[in-house]
Amino acid sequence: MLVIKAIVEYDGTDFSGFQRQPNRRTVQGELERSLESIFREPVKVIGSGRTDAGVHARGQAISFTAPEQFPADKICLALNSELPIDIRVQSSETVGDDFHARYSAKSRTYIYVVLNREAPSALLARYVWHLRNPLDLSEMRRAADGLVGIRDFASFGMPDKPGASTIREIKSIRIAQRKSAVFFAVRGNAFLRGMVRAIVGTLVEVGTGRRNPDDMSEILAAGSRDAVKVIAPSRGLYLTSVEY
Amino acid sequence: MLVIKAIVEYDGTDFSGFQRQPNRRTVQGELERSLESIFREPVKVIGSGRTDAGVHARGQAISFTAPEQFPADKICLALNSELPIDIRVQSSETVGDDFHARYSAKSRTYIYVVLNREAPSALLARYVWHLRNPLDLSEMRRAADGLVGIRDFASFGMPDKPGASTIREIKSIRIAQRKSAVFFAVRGNAFLRGMVRAIVGTLVEVGTGRRNPDDMSEILAAGSRDAVKVIAPSRGLYLTSVEY
Repeated sequence: MLVIKAIVEYDGTDFSGFQRQPNRRTVQGELERSLESIFREPVKVIGSGRTDAGVHARGQAISFTAPEQFPADKICLALNSELPIDIRVQSSETVGDDFHARYSAKSRTYIYVVLNREAPSALLARYVWHLRNPLDLSEMRRAADGLVGIRDFASFGMPDKPGASTIREIKSIRIAQRKSAVFFAVRGNAFLRGMVRAIVGTLVEVGTGRRNPDDMSEILAAGSRDAVKVIAPSRGLYLTSVEY
Repeated sequence: MLVIKAIVEYDGTDFSGFQRQPNRRTVQGELERSLESIFREPVKVIGSGRTDAGVHARGQAISFTAPEQFPADKICLALNSELPIDIRVQSSETVGDDFHARYSAKSRTYIYVVLNREAPSALLARYVWHLRNPLDLSEMRRAADGLVGIRDFASFGMPDKPGASTIREIKSIRIAQRKSAVFFAVRGNAFLRGMVRAIVGTLVEVGTGRRNPDDMSEILAAGSRDAVKVIAPSRGLYLTSVEY
């Protein structure tokens, strides 16, 4: 028995999210199906977190227990030959028995991409949120500063289990522009469901002048999902890396 | 009656090429359907050239005659509200009555993108040709020099009509690398069917040491499609611009 950690990239467009669900095409479902076909027995895949339907990953971390000795670096190739083209394993390695992709993770980094220009793009349609109105980066950065820290993010998302804690730590939010792309990099210890998209949606409201950067404390204090008006669409969101 | 020129971007993955065909999803077909729904009568769309199934465009030029006065710059928005998400019109303008997207074009520029690294990419699967073996850029550039000029490219592609001329002018082939992406920019007065993909496939053979850069004159002289062994897949190819 060997615990394997792997880094997985996927195009979330045609998946009902990461988490396995009956009769739905999910990333976990495809990974488990491929591992079963390699090892000829069921293998449970643990992800660092559950990305929602349509959300992409460049660096989702997963772990699983291989039921037999198998060179860890070969698992990468074996998996890619079984997996559909919209999931690709980037690397795989043996880790200690106590490694758990979810519980061992210290933080996760998501990047959200906005295409901020007049003309829409057919080639980027699956991968960005297209916004015509120019975004004011300095106003958005000021608002973002009001979200960094250990806070109750109940207004921005739901816990996996009803009634569980909604306190999370956002370690940093960095906002950068390159040509007509605006990038939001959000790093946190963990995230509620829909939290990054609710944060980006709210920052975009600030960036287009529909909200004041100082509104953040009020939204956080509300503790209600009604306080957030705009949820950024999932297609612009990427789970970029998981830090252990 | 007004002649309109428009610049169109499309993701070629889910199209059977540009040219209208019965019972197939084509770019021309979608454009004509959308224009008919705007003008309430059939409109014929002329493209600068016919991209093959799966080939993308960032700057395909089209022209058509609008059956009524309609502000040219508004056609862009009207079309984008009718078109499917994988075709987006970037701009539209009124041009002279003698403008013809195909016959007025002086040259076309295609860019081919190779992802040249060990790890495959799920997010780029529709948009690049993934090759693990490192490409030797200087050898490929030397081979490319042997293709530039006015030549008979019968070995590299087929004319639209059997028996038509296979002489074309390649004005330049530029090869560049940025991180793990290798770009081939090919500019010519016009191209035979499959010509850019046959050129890139052959240059990749040179880049991986399976062919000598000096083979080009021999392949050209053969005048037979059997002389070309590797055709690059359509997903890495982009019609980037059309020069008038």
